[in-house]
Amino acid sequence: MIDLKNKILSMVSEDFAEIEHALKQNLNPYLDLISEVASHILFSGGKRLRPLLMILSARICGYKGNMDKTYSTIFEYLHAATLLHDDLVDGATLRRGKPVAHSIWGNSITVLTGDFLLGRSLSISAKTGLLKVIQIITKITEDMSQGEIHQLTRIGNLDLTEDEYMEIIRRKTAVLIQGACWTGALIADASEKEEKGLAEYGFDLGIAFQMADDLLDYTSDTSILGKEVGTDLKEGKLTLPVIYSLKKADYEDRIIMEKIITDKNFSFNDFEILIELLKKYGGLEYTKKLASKHIEKAKNSILFFEPSATKELLLNIADYALVRKA
Amino acid sequence: MIDLKNKILSMVSEDFAEIEHALKQNLNPYLDLISEVASHILFSGGKRLRPLLMILSARICGYKGNMDKTYSTIFEYLHAATLLHDDLVDGATLRRGKPVAHSIWGNSITVLTGDFLLGRSLSISAKTGLLKVIQIITKITEDMSQGEIHQLTRIGNLDLTEDEYMEIIRRKTAVLIQGACWTGALIADASEKEEKGLAEYGFDLGIAFQMADDLLDYTSDTSILGKEVGTDLKEGKLTLPVIYSLKKADYEDRIIMEKIITDKNFSFNDFEILIELLKKYGGLEYTKKLASKHIEKAKNSILFFEPSATKELLLNIADYALVRKA
Repeated sequence: MIDLKNKILSMVSEDFAEIEHALKQNLNPYLDLISEVASHILFSGGKRLRPLLMILSARICGYKGNMDKTYSTIFEYLHAATLLHDDLVDGATLRRGKPVAHSIWGNSITVLTGDFLLGRSLSISAKTGLLKVIQIITKITEDMSQGEIHQLTRIGNLDLTEDEYMEIIRRKTAVLIQGACWTGALIADASEKEEKGLAEYGFDLGIAFQMADDLLDYTSDTSILGKEVGTDLKEGKLTLPVIYSLKKADYEDRIIMEKIITDKNFSFNDFEILIELLKKYGGLEYTKKLASKHIEKAKNSILFFEPSATKELLLNIADYALVRKA
Repeated sequence: MIDLKNKILSMVSEDFAEIEHALKQNLNPYLDLISEVASHILFSGGKRLRPLLMILSARICGYKGNMDKTYSTIFEYLHAATLLHDDLVDGATLRRGKPVAHSIWGNSITVLTGDFLLGRSLSISAKTGLLKVIQIITKITEDMSQGEIHQLTRIGNLDLTEDEYMEIIRRKTAVLIQGACWTGALIADASEKEEKGLAEYGFDLGIAFQMADDLLDYTSDTSILGKEVGTDLKEGKLTLPVIYSLKKADYEDRIIMEKIITDKNFSFNDFEILIELLKKYGGLEYTKKLASKHIEKAKNSILFFEPSATKELLLNIADYALVRKA
C-alpha cells in the first residue's frame, strides 16, 4: 500500500509542485483577508486529487498546451469552496488536523470566502473558452449544493436507503471528479471515445473514492485521518456501511445500533460495539466490495488507451483510492 | 413620483408577468425544500429591476429572439443568492417585511440554497453560448463576494472613506446591474457603441441605486421600506450620508455622532438626533446630489439611441431610482 502511494507520488512530484504554484498564482483576491482564509483551506495538505486527475486526463489525450495547470485550479478552488460551506453546515471542528475556517474567522467570512472561491473557479472555467467545459462545471455547482442539501435533510434519518445514498454521493463527490477528468479530455480536444472514457473513469472513481472515505470514518485512526473517527455518525450522517448493516440486522441488534446512532454523545465503547455490528452484518465488507466494483469499472473505462506512464498512473490512482488510509 | 412609478409599471406589466413565469420555470431543483427556500426569497415582492433592465437593454438593441426572459433570470437568481448569504452575514431579521430565510430554515439550508441559486444562475449564463456574457457574470460573482467581505471588514469602522465606500458599492451593487444591461446588449448582438452605452448606463444606475438605498435607511418609514429604518447603522455599516457628515462635523458633534453610531442599542431619539446632524452637515444632501450626478451620467450614456418607448422606459427607470420610497 505504502509502495503504491510512494510510486504515485514519485511520478507526479513535478505536477504537484506546479499545481501548488498555480493555486497560489490564480487566487488573485484584492483583499489580504480573503487570501488568508482561502489559503487556510487550500494549503492544508489537500491531496490535489482533482487537479491532478484533470492534468493526467489532458496528458493521456495528448494535450500540448501550457494552460493545464491553470485550468486544474478550477477543481481545487471549487472543492475548497464546498469544503468551507460544508464544514460550516456540518458544524465540523477539524479538517486535516487543523481547526476549520469558521472556528477562526466566523461564519460570515467563511461563507463569503467560499463564494469567492466559487467565483474564481468559474472565472477560470470561462477562460478555457470552451462552452462544454463551462456547462459541465456550472452543472456541477448545482449538483453539489443539491447533494449537500439532500444529505442535510436526511440527517439522523434511519430509513435512508442505499439508492438515496448513491444519489447523494453522485452529486456531492462523483460529478466533480468526473468533471475534472472530462475537462482534461476537452481541453486536449480529445476524441469522443476518449472523452467518454475519461468521464466514466472519473465518475466511478468518484463514487468509489467517497465510499472509501465513508469507510475510513469507521476504520481509520484519528491521528492519521486528521479528523475524528466516527464524525459522520456524530453528525447524523448515515453512510453505506451503516445503511447496509441496519437493513440486515435482526431486531435486537437493530435496536442497539439505532440507540448508538441517535445518541450524539455516544461513547468510544458504543462506537466499538457499532463497528462490531457493522462487521457482523457485513456493512464494511459490502461497501468495500461495491467500491472495488466501481474501481474496476473506472479502470476498464480507460483500458483502450495505448500503454503509457500516464495511463499507468491513472490506473494506480484508482487502485490507491481503495487502499488509502486517510 | 407616484405617477412615474405607475407609468413605468403600466409599460412593463407584460414583461413583469413573463419574468415571474420564467423565474418559476427555470428554478428546476430536484428537491422540494430548495424550491421552497428559493421561492421564499424570489417571490417576496422583489422589484425585478435586474431582469427588467436586461430585457429592455436587449430590446433597445433590436433583440428578436425568445430567450430574453429565460436569460433575465440569471440576474434575479444571482441577486437572490447574494441576498440569502448577505442577510445571514448581516444577521438581518426582516427582508421586504418577511422574516429572512435563515430565521426559518437555519443557516445551513440558507447557505446551500444560495449556492444552488448561484449555480442555476451560472448554468443559465452558460446556455447563452456567449463567452463574453459568461465572463462578465463569473467576474460579477467574484466582485460581489469581495465587496461584501470588504464591507464586513469595515463594520463599525468610523474612518471609512468615501473612496472605500465607492469601491464597496461598485462591487456589491453596480457590477450586477451593469452586467444585466451589458448582457442585454450582448444577446442582441449589439454594436460596440450600444454595448458600451448600456454597460455604462447600468453601472451608473447601479451606483445611484445603492446610494438611494443607503439614503432610504435614514429617510424612509419602516412600514414602507419593509425592514427597519436605521438597519445599516445598527449593523455597523457606515454609508455615504454618515461618512460625509462625520468628516464635516465639528469636534463636539462628531463625538455625539460617534457615540450614537457605536451604540448598537441606540434609541429612536438618538436616531433622530443623528438624522438632524446628517442634515446639518449636509450628508443627506451630498449623497442625493452625487446619486443625481450618476443618474444624469447613466441617462447620457444612452441618449444616442433613437427615440422609442424602450428608451423612454430606461430613462424613466433611471429617474425613478432617485425618487423611490422603498
